[in-house]
Amino acid sequence: MKVVITGGAGFIGLQLARRLTALGTLTGPSGRPEKIDEVLLFDVVTPENRPQGLDQRAKFVSGEIADKATVKRLFDRPDLSVFHLASVVSGGGEQDFDLAMRVNLDGNLHVLESARALGSRPRVVFASSIAVFGGKAMPKHVGDTTKQTPQTTYGMTKAIGELLVNDYTRKSFIDGRSARLPTVIIRPGKPNKAASSFASGVFREPLNGIECVLPVGTEAVMPLAGYRTIVECLVKLHEAPGDKLGEDRAVSLPSLDVTVADMIAALKRVAGNRKLGDIRVEKDPVIERIVATWPVGTTFERALALGLPKDPDLDSIVKAYIEDFLPR
Amino acid sequence: MKVVITGGAGFIGLQLARRLTALGTLTGPSGRPEKIDEVLLFDVVTPENRPQGLDQRAKFVSGEIADKATVKRLFDRPDLSVFHLASVVSGGGEQDFDLAMRVNLDGNLHVLESARALGSRPRVVFASSIAVFGGKAMPKHVGDTTKQTPQTTYGMTKAIGELLVNDYTRKSFIDGRSARLPTVIIRPGKPNKAASSFASGVFREPLNGIECVLPVGTEAVMPLAGYRTIVECLVKLHEAPGDKLGEDRAVSLPSLDVTVADMIAALKRVAGNRKLGDIRVEKDPVIERIVATWPVGTTFERALALGLPKDPDLDSIVKAYIEDFLPR
Repeated sequence: MKVVITGGAGFIGLQLARRLTALGTLTGPSGRPEKIDEVLLFDVVTPENRPQGLDQRAKFVSGEIADKATVKRLFDRPDLSVFHLASVVSGGGEQDFDLAMRVNLDGNLHVLESARALGSRPRVVFASSIAVFGGKAMPKHVGDTTKQTPQTTYGMTKAIGELLVNDYTRKSFIDGRSARLPTVIIRPGKPNKAASSFASGVFREPLNGIECVLPVGTEAVMPLAGYRTIVECLVKLHEAPGDKLGEDRAVSLPSLDVTVADMIAALKRVAGNRKLGDIRVEKDPVIERIVATWPVGTTFERALALGLPKDPDLDSIVKAYIEDFLPR
Repeated sequence: MKVVITGGAGFIGLQLARRLTALGTLTGPSGRPEKIDEVLLFDVVTPENRPQGLDQRAKFVSGEIADKATVKRLFDRPDLSVFHLASVVSGGGEQDFDLAMRVNLDGNLHVLESARALGSRPRVVFASSIAVFGGKAMPKHVGDTTKQTPQTTYGMTKAIGELLVNDYTRKSFIDGRSARLPTVIIRPGKPNKAASSFASGVFREPLNGIECVLPVGTEAVMPLAGYRTIVECLVKLHEAPGDKLGEDRAVSLPSLDVTVADMIAALKRVAGNRKLGDIRVEKDPVIERIVATWPVGTTFERALALGLPKDPDLDSIVKAYIEDFLPR
C-alpha cells in the first residue's frame, strides 16, 4: 500500500515516515495489514538531501496543498492511507488569514475529496489541535466532550476539519480519524511561526548552548507531548478499529499539563553537567494573547481507552531529544 | 441602508422582508439606526408576481449562491446588512452531499468574503440550525455550551458556518451573529425536502382539508418555534449590541419542546368547528433516522437575556397561521 503524508517534510511528517517505514505494514482499506511499498511525503518544499533513516520507499513531492489538481495527483491508487499534517500554524494564521483559509480549509477539502474519489474508503488521519478550544467560555479542563470555541484562525480551521472528517466518515466516503494534538516538543532546528514555538526553544536553545528568550512568563501553563509519543499516537489512531471510535472520530491525544517553570526544571535535571544557554523572559504581547486563549488542563480518556500512549514525564521527553538530536 | 436577504424568496425570507420594510430602520454599520431604502431578496428563483405586503424597496435578484461573482455583486454599498438564510435543507443535503457543500459551505464563504470586502464591518445574521447537535453523545438538553456533533451534512455545514462567523467577527471583518433555529412552523404551501417538513404539514394539511401522512410516530419530540417569533428573533439578534454577544456569536433561539401528539392536540383545540383533513402515520425510515438524531430538549438562556422572544404555546402559533394564511 501507499501512505501519503501531507506536511511530510516537516518535523512530525519525517518522524512519522521513519516510523512507518520501520513498521513496514499498516491496516489498508481492505481492513487487513498491508505492506507499505511507498511513503509519499508531500510538502511545499522537498529536502535538499534525503533525510537520514529513510530508504527508497520514501518519495518526496513538492507542491501547493491549496491546489486541487496537485493534491488529486497524489491519490493514484486505491490501497492508500493518508496522514494529513499540512497546515499553516497558529501564529502564521493570525498574520495571514487568507493563507490559513487556503491551506487549512481548502487544502483539507482537497485531501478529503481526493481520498473520497478513490472509492476505497481509505483511512485518513487528520492532525487537529488543542487550539480548537479557547476563549472566556472555555472550561478549566478540555477534551472530547468540550464545545469548541477557537480564538485563532488556525484553531477555527482545525475545528472545521474535525467536522468535515466526521461527516465524510459518516457518509462512508473515507474512514477518518482526527488526532487533537497538544503542543509537540522538542522540535529540532529553528523556531517556527507557531505561537507555541518557545515550548521547544526553551529546551533546544539552552541544550545547544544558545540563549532562549521566552515570550511568556514562567507561570504559563501548556499541555505538551513528546514527538515520539505523538508519532505513536498517530499510528495507533490509524490502526484503531472504526467501530471503537464511533460517530465522533476526533480524539484528544494525551498530554502533560505543565508550566514553563516545570519545563526549565526538567531541562536542568536531565542536562546534568552540560553547559546550558541562558533563559530569559521578554514578553511578547501577541504571543501572550494567543497562549492565554489556550487550555491549561486536558482530559483524554478516550485516547487512553484506545491504547494511545502518554508521556510518563517531561524528563523522558528531554532525554529522547538528547538521544535523537544532540551529538554524543 | 441596504439589507441583503439570501434565500429571500423562501418563506422566512419573505416574512423577514415584510417585517423589515414595516420597521423601516435597522442599526447600520455606523452603529446608528439607518433608514432602509432597499431590501434585496436573493434566491435561486424570483417570485412570478410581487408578493403581497412588499413595496418597491423590496427588489428580487435570482442567481446561484455558490457562484462567488454573483454574490459579490449584491454587496455594492458599505451601508449594508445581511441576513444569510440561503441553504440546502436537511433532507436535501442527505440526498446530495455535493450540492449541500456548494450552497451551504461555499455559499456561506462567498457571503462572508463579500461582506468583508465592503470594509465597513457590516452586520451579518447567519441562520444556523439546531441540527448542529445530534448523535449518541448528545446530552438530553442542548444549547449554547453544548459540543456540536452534527449527524447530517446540513448540520455539519451549519456548525462550520457558526465557526466562520465567529472568526470573521473576531478578525473585525464583519459584525456577525448566528441564530440557531429550531424547526420553524407553520410554513404555508407545499412540503419541502427538510426532514422536519411534516411539523408544518401536520397543521397545514388538515387545516386545508387535506390528509396529512406523518413519516414519524406521534411520540416523536421536536423543538419548534413559530415563524412570527423567529422573524422577530432574527431582527432582535441583528440589533443586539456586539459587546453583549461576546466571543461566541451563535445563539440558540427559544423553542417549545413538544411531541407530535401535542401538535395534533393544539391543532384540534384551535381549529374549533373547522373540518380537518385526516392525520395518519406511515413511517419513513430515512426521515425517522434523521429526526432521531435531533435533540429533544433545548436551553436558550442567552437568547432570553438578549431580549429575544419565545412563543407562549403551540396554540398561538396555530392561531397566527390561520390569521395570516387561511381565508376568513
